[in-house]
Amino acid sequence: MYEDRVDGLRGKFQGFGIDAIWIVQPENRRYLSGFKAPDGQLTESSGSLLITFDEALLITDSRYTTQAEKEVVGFEVITQKGDLVEALSKALKELGAKRLGFEGGYLIWELYQQVKERLSQQSPLIELVPLSGVVEEMRVVKEPGEVEALRRSAKLMGNVLDRVIRELEPGHIERDVAWRIETLIREQGADEAAFPPIVASGPNSALPHAIPTNRALEEREPIILDVGAKLEGYCSDMTRTVFLGEPSEDFKEIYATVREAQISALRSVKPGMETTEADSIARDHILKAGYGDFFGHSLGHGIGLAPHETPAVGPLKPKALREGMVFTVEPGIYIPGKGGVRLEEMVILEKDGAELITTNKDFYSF
Amino acid sequence: MYEDRVDGLRGKFQGFGIDAIWIVQPENRRYLSGFKAPDGQLTESSGSLLITFDEALLITDSRYTTQAEKEVVGFEVITQKGDLVEALSKALKELGAKRLGFEGGYLIWELYQQVKERLSQQSPLIELVPLSGVVEEMRVVKEPGEVEALRRSAKLMGNVLDRVIRELEPGHIERDVAWRIETLIREQGADEAAFPPIVASGPNSALPHAIPTNRALEEREPIILDVGAKLEGYCSDMTRTVFLGEPSEDFKEIYATVREAQISALRSVKPGMETTEADSIARDHILKAGYGDFFGHSLGHGIGLAPHETPAVGPLKPKALREGMVFTVEPGIYIPGKGGVRLEEMVILEKDGAELITTNKDFYSF
Repeated sequence: MYEDRVDGLRGKFQGFGIDAIWIVQPENRRYLSGFKAPDGQLTESSGSLLITFDEALLITDSRYTTQAEKEVVGFEVITQKGDLVEALSKALKELGAKRLGFEGGYLIWELYQQVKERLSQQSPLIELVPLSGVVEEMRVVKEPGEVEALRRSAKLMGNVLDRVIRELEPGHIERDVAWRIETLIREQGADEAAFPPIVASGPNSALPHAIPTNRALEEREPIILDVGAKLEGYCSDMTRTVFLGEPSEDFKEIYATVREAQISALRSVKPGMETTEADSIARDHILKAGYGDFFGHSLGHGIGLAPHETPAVGPLKPKALREGMVFTVEPGIYIPGKGGVRLEEMVILEKDGAELITTNKDFYSF
Repeated sequence: MYEDRVDGLRGKFQGFGIDAIWIVQPENRRYLSGFKAPDGQLTESSGSLLITFDEALLITDSRYTTQAEKEVVGFEVITQKGDLVEALSKALKELGAKRLGFEGGYLIWELYQQVKERLSQQSPLIELVPLSGVVEEMRVVKEPGEVEALRRSAKLMGNVLDRVIRELEPGHIERDVAWRIETLIREQGADEAAFPPIVASGPNSALPHAIPTNRALEEREPIILDVGAKLEGYCSDMTRTVFLGEPSEDFKEIYATVREAQISALRSVKPGMETTEADSIARDHILKAGYGDFFGHSLGHGIGLAPHETPAVGPLKPKALREGMVFTVEPGIYIPGKGGVRLEEMVILEKDGAELITTNKDFYSF
């Protein structure tokens, strides 16, 4: 599996005019090598892949050597003695690389400059070639094994969410509910939450990226639960909006509008359709219902090893949908000061349309 | 407080030859503005600060507007309509900036290129000036309020760790212990764990960055617990090595050696000493005891809003220690395949030496 992916990447070298590639993005690194370590901090890398036509190295430091040796498949683990710039230039020289592709969308400016400067001092000269989203593009169509992993992750998350929703009562605190979700995610065997759970009630539900507060849940108000698990590295992401007791007529209408927008998108998407068109199907429905000003974010996003990945399914940057893509469909309507409704499912795109990955017992009612 | 920090930063503009600065690093952003949102993903920014001599803007997108308006002090919140590059160039034009400093150690290469290209198309021309660790350098000496926050964070963590260590029994699973720690951190009121807790037993304790496994704790073997909490944004970080029952003679000696190395460093550090010298005090002790090959990492690191920050206290890159710096002192000895011992305290450097921030009931014995 990893060998096939690395070979697939090598197949793109000629098109990019490179004979080596340097991978630092953690999910790309894991996808190609099996090395699971995340980066310690945003600017603290736990390892670099160096791939040429013939060789595949993982350069890491002594803290990660043992883990790397246990996890990687098809990569030689090199433990750097000094800093990364030094280790990288030494390895490149030994590999005889001349044109090194790097991840322009992930590499830090300063590290780029340091490597560039170091490489310019050695001979033969090695040129740095910026690449954009190359491995991300390989990750966009999921392999069968990945789809199974995503299904398991979504199933775990669905079970947890069902259970938490049944437990909800007026007076419960948003933060406590979020923590309950995180606890169950872990107790059910997930690696961790894919992102901090969102539990947003009443007026807070009007904030698409609400952070759980000490607010107590009340009857009849919208409560948005947007949650995801990471299991065997693969993320799930789903959103339910629930009411304790009957919602107001306003929110009944809003809920129905969001659900209809979602269903129309779910029924329409198919391979070949552009992401922008998928977005506009849901957006137009919300617009026609008179809520056009209250759906500020994109319809959805790809999901896999990362909770957000290619393709973005929004009003900008059209990209053709392809069979095997996994993405979310999550329209929402947010009335400032009052509240919001968001509904989110994960789908895999099959030949003839979308198939749900998330379990959705309550799909057509609340 | 925030205004003073922003003014302090403005005071550096002339030296850098800039009239504006662009801040994207999340802890720097929080330090200057009070905006608490982390970045959603490594490459998904939740906001940019733009600071000139007269103005201070936080540019964010609609998902974060409400949170930003609630949290920031002294910044005008701008909600971008299109993408960041567009919003940034528009704001810079209105501000009349000519030379914009940016965070070279954090900005992604591709975003830098996009901004550079966009700015080169507008007049008057705006030049991009790379800066390195400017706000990080301001954060290195802690204000009294920050020290108090760090003490509270360390106290919470110390209480949790004491409790968990008392509960340990042979047969407990590393992963379960780690989760117990994370649960208590949250239940005691912390924002979250500062980093995933390390619980490493037996041979796993020989891995400085061990990830908790399904291994069961056994009697007489070393168990390393390396844990930290984040409370009001401020991180703690402490490590204990414990044994269930009496350790072997080998590990008694290793433990004593690590503790002596730590104490000698703790007693010696003072303002003006270089970080490399602090490191070598502990390292020499370990070397003389015959374990020189088994202490692969640095002695410590600064800690504050980030779990790892300036100064690095290691064998490379000397930097003078200053009064008010907060950092860890954490020597270790790791025997591959057998096990390891690491002991870590947080200290604040006072005029006459280090004062412990972590509570350490069991400082001289196990």
